[in-house]
Amino acid sequence: MGKKNLRISLLGAGTVGSGVWSLLQENADLLYAQTGCRFEVRHVLVRSLDKPRKAPIPTELLTTDAQRAVLDPEVDVVIELLGGLEPARTLIEQALQAGKHVITANKMVMALAGDRLITLASAQKVRLLYEASVAGSLPILTSLQGALAGNRITRVVGIVNSTTNFILRTMEEGLEQGTPAEDSYRIALQKAQELGYAEADPTSDVEGYDAQYKMAILARLAFLQYVPVEAVYREGITHLSGRDMVWAKRLGYGIKLLGTAERLPDGRLNVRVHPTLIPLENPLCVIRGAFSGVWLQGNGFQDMLMHGMAAGARPTASAVVGDLIEVARHPKPLPIPDPSLQPGETAPIESLTFRYFVRAQGTEPALESVRRALGEWGILRLEEDPEAGEFVAFTAPLQEGYFQEQMAKLRAQSGGAIQVIRVLE
Amino acid sequence: MGKKNLRISLLGAGTVGSGVWSLLQENADLLYAQTGCRFEVRHVLVRSLDKPRKAPIPTELLTTDAQRAVLDPEVDVVIELLGGLEPARTLIEQALQAGKHVITANKMVMALAGDRLITLASAQKVRLLYEASVAGSLPILTSLQGALAGNRITRVVGIVNSTTNFILRTMEEGLEQGTPAEDSYRIALQKAQELGYAEADPTSDVEGYDAQYKMAILARLAFLQYVPVEAVYREGITHLSGRDMVWAKRLGYGIKLLGTAERLPDGRLNVRVHPTLIPLENPLCVIRGAFSGVWLQGNGFQDMLMHGMAAGARPTASAVVGDLIEVARHPKPLPIPDPSLQPGETAPIESLTFRYFVRAQGTEPALESVRRALGEWGILRLEEDPEAGEFVAFTAPLQEGYFQEQMAKLRAQSGGAIQVIRVLE
Repeated sequence: MGKKNLRISLLGAGTVGSGVWSLLQENADLLYAQTGCRFEVRHVLVRSLDKPRKAPIPTELLTTDAQRAVLDPEVDVVIELLGGLEPARTLIEQALQAGKHVITANKMVMALAGDRLITLASAQKVRLLYEASVAGSLPILTSLQGALAGNRITRVVGIVNSTTNFILRTMEEGLEQGTPAEDSYRIALQKAQELGYAEADPTSDVEGYDAQYKMAILARLAFLQYVPVEAVYREGITHLSGRDMVWAKRLGYGIKLLGTAERLPDGRLNVRVHPTLIPLENPLCVIRGAFSGVWLQGNGFQDMLMHGMAAGARPTASAVVGDLIEVARHPKPLPIPDPSLQPGETAPIESLTFRYFVRAQGTEPALESVRRALGEWGILRLEEDPEAGEFVAFTAPLQEGYFQEQMAKLRAQSGGAIQVIRVLE
Repeated sequence: MGKKNLRISLLGAGTVGSGVWSLLQENADLLYAQTGCRFEVRHVLVRSLDKPRKAPIPTELLTTDAQRAVLDPEVDVVIELLGGLEPARTLIEQALQAGKHVITANKMVMALAGDRLITLASAQKVRLLYEASVAGSLPILTSLQGALAGNRITRVVGIVNSTTNFILRTMEEGLEQGTPAEDSYRIALQKAQELGYAEADPTSDVEGYDAQYKMAILARLAFLQYVPVEAVYREGITHLSGRDMVWAKRLGYGIKLLGTAERLPDGRLNVRVHPTLIPLENPLCVIRGAFSGVWLQGNGFQDMLMHGMAAGARPTASAVVGDLIEVARHPKPLPIPDPSLQPGETAPIESLTFRYFVRAQGTEPALESVRRALGEWGILRLEEDPEAGEFVAFTAPLQEGYFQEQMAKLRAQSGGAIQVIRVLE
């Protein structure tokens, strides 16, 4: 520390890599004032040397030689911004093994192989930081590991995928402007793709994989318990219809793809990602478009919501640079094992209890059988639209496993379309 | 660091002190897992040994001897929770001089004497942390000094006084339920006092002093520039009427006591506290009751809002315990001078430009003279209530110094009541 330079290899010079480069140049004096360090980029790993870039990175820094970028003995920190599982995971592992600090924005690597890499970094006495992997610029991971680490966290609820948040918001706007309900998802997805918020193959976002990775990482740090990705329940937004949003809004709710991690009364942890009805006055409902937000509950601070620009070059670069500052100031890891790697039990979603929003569409005898079944379990609110051959209901709290099984039977028996969305308590 | 204990003197065992005590006991295992340290309270400074307390603090820890609590060679950290300028400031100084780390929740001391104490702590090579002094549990100061420190901050806008936020919200609710506009402030203040949100003498909150201290601290850390308290423009909420809120709501706005710190295009800093009209759909408007929120803008992360429980025993204790974790992990201060003590220029509010909400009440010739004057400067919206002898207007952007001078003249000439509230851009 002190007056020396921190020498960096940047793996990737796409949107985020260019953002990191630019922020390091623009704020160089500020970073020096804050750390006493100069941040010096030595290598920038790219796929092609000739491609035009968003930032004016000097060509002599560009390399296509990953081993050179990762293993150069004159490099202190490797910043991995390649995305995807491989070769990112292997390069991170090589960098750690070579005694270099690693900063990554890679949620897939940190969710699927994080436990192994955290252990390796600790054994190598280097830092492995990944604030940019969850909710972009928001200092959520840093706060959970630092300022809020004296709290027993009870619940984490997040809008952690801004692509789906943008799509859902665009669906709402489209419906307000008269888009037919059955087209609203397709049109919103297309708009997200045109604006660069969604990829050509949007599966990772719209099927909830991205949010699943992020919730595995968040839950691990919040609850100090190792959470395998496959223990995170995942449901995307592709089955949502504009009709759901029209009804939700009419009844005072919005629909968001929420990630939730919570400690159950029996001590087990449940982590899940699924579309959720949220009361319009809930601050989570204000989180719109390309923003993300995470609501935390803990036994000290009680309730806290962080909310901000999560995606894009600059916000992600801000998180990476924040991690660089941490490495510059505190290059030694804590001399204690990372408590987030402790084993612990997780509970499947089937054992939880929810209130459900149910939307049934079909012909009358079929609808009546659904209405009757719901009536037996307890309906808190029922709204009919006979012209559309449709009704919606809010159920009393019911156990997920039992309820979904019954709904599957009803779907088979009645032949009607039955949509089920959980409601935020 | 490592396996040793961190020995603590707690100055003050009121609401916050009791909260810190309880949190340290309840989360002892968690704190050990996070730091490898046991946190051991050695002394609790109280005014009277016999007073009943909110937490079961063992009587053998209680002392009325401040010097013993502060200077005991077996104490590593002094946590100051006395509030007020003296004796807190002197005790903090003594503790630092004795080589002890200091954690304080005292915004008055940190705003009025922070520069001197920060310099002293640095010279003594100990930590001086004060997260709890601004926005309670929200990790704002920690983030500005850490995860967000790679950003050039351009603006900080905060609801940093939860007492006035509660009063303003209660006024709104009262008006909705039919409280006469002229009584709404008085009734809301009374309710805040009954619930313990406001003190018997509410001056510090309702006249904006508390927010002024907090904004001086926030601005110093956000803009890395020494900000004397007297450079922070201050205006409280006592001159607000229920009529202002009724009109604001009708026109799609809420009224909040906002603190703002921003870098002007000419490089100078402006810091101010005053009631502000905010569009109802702005996320700051969702921050209600006893919550606080801070909206940050920076050249990396762009936009971020942190929002949570700010006052009360537990949230404040969470911030104090977060600082304890930091001391346990990193007892050595950074070997660079604190950049927030650099001198810099501040701009007086008179040189800024605002749009104004103007509410004029009186008899017609007087109202007409106000209307005419406003018309010359540019009115963006005008609403009349002839029955109440009242109109409101939104002005075009105008320079504060010139506008307020003209309004003062108009008040004198017309004899009408003219209310002026700035509007958030």
